[in-house]
Amino acid sequence: MDESQLRTIIRKIIDEELNGTPSIPVGVSNHHIHLTDEDFDRLFPGQKMTVFRQLKQPSDFASEQKVTLVGPNGVEINNVRILGPTRKHSQVEISKTEAFQLAIDAPIRLSGDLEGAPSIKVRSEFAEITIQGVIIAKRHIHMSLQDAAKFGVKYGDNVQVAIESEGRRTIFDDVLARPREDFVLEMHIDTDEANAANIQANTVARIVEAKPEQ
Amino acid sequence: MDESQLRTIIRKIIDEELNGTPSIPVGVSNHHIHLTDEDFDRLFPGQKMTVFRQLKQPSDFASEQKVTLVGPNGVEINNVRILGPTRKHSQVEISKTEAFQLAIDAPIRLSGDLEGAPSIKVRSEFAEITIQGVIIAKRHIHMSLQDAAKFGVKYGDNVQVAIESEGRRTIFDDVLARPREDFVLEMHIDTDEANAANIQANTVARIVEAKPEQ
Repeated sequence: MDESQLRTIIRKIIDEELNGTPSIPVGVSNHHIHLTDEDFDRLFPGQKMTVFRQLKQPSDFASEQKVTLVGPNGVEINNVRILGPTRKHSQVEISKTEAFQLAIDAPIRLSGDLEGAPSIKVRSEFAEITIQGVIIAKRHIHMSLQDAAKFGVKYGDNVQVAIESEGRRTIFDDVLARPREDFVLEMHIDTDEANAANIQANTVARIVEAKPEQ
Repeated sequence: MDESQLRTIIRKIIDEELNGTPSIPVGVSNHHIHLTDEDFDRLFPGQKMTVFRQLKQPSDFASEQKVTLVGPNGVEINNVRILGPTRKHSQVEISKTEAFQLAIDAPIRLSGDLEGAPSIKVRSEFAEITIQGVIIAKRHIHMSLQDAAKFGVKYGDNVQVAIESEGRRTIFDDVLARPREDFVLEMHIDTDEANAANIQANTVARIVEAKPEQ
């Protein structure tokens, strides 16, 4: 262990002692797309999804392959990364700012909740397909079962999370708790939310109130 | 007075009776630009600024004339409205999302506080000029002196404002109180903030805490 790692651990312990609840790292989700095996094969015939970068949640990765989103108004968003591994349903996640740009009426939803969500054209160098399931991601916190016990929350609870940033301190309400055995503690927000709260690389979140699922 | 106007007034009174503090209309500021007489004349030689739409704050208006912002990376944002009347200093206001797009390191500032703010190229059909003073607007509430007395705040106080929206309830901290004799009650936030809080046409804000200026 080098000095930098040691400092990080000591800071974390001091923080927990002073503030009671552990601070939560913030992960900012840029627009991205999840694909089924079939849709991936239609967009990249004969290819395999290759890892560009591992993500913080184990098993999740950003792939080398990227696509272009084409809105019903013809506006395009390029360089949209595919996140792997493949899933049972394809799904496109954009910010609300981008929903306005693309002129698409995407609902605010948790990943996988795609009923009634609109469709969009997705283009690669090889093909253009239509994918049903464009959503604006609902903010949430990945956490282990141990974290959930520590916070006193269960899956589906809404928590209030304070962001202590420079000039744009914000309390996000309607943040969903997502405990799972293999999850690593991390709050996921999109670029609109990150910018509204002036999130920097080292900004952390703190739960200020937990509300049981109704 | 027709029934619709009467209903609005009655709703407002009921709201104040039930909730104690008056609700505050939310105005979402899209990117825009303020110009000096001189800069306007350089961009639109021989023209006069003409009114496209009156804004809620008396004397302020969106002009017919629009410009293009050109980032240092060559990325362009088109159809940026000039807000009139002309001012003593030119100033460009963008969202943080747009600051990333244009690759410009704009600070979060109140209107007019331009020291050290970066410069940007601004283009019309007639000319391209460079303007110093690109900022991301600090959120604030315009209010009359009577409103300020009612809220118990003075110029420069930070207030905490709750937004009760669908799926993205948010409490914005670091919201600056701006009372002035001729101001009309209205909270100004940018598009990132509006999208992060899922602001709709009828969403209102409510002050939950006022902190005296330090």
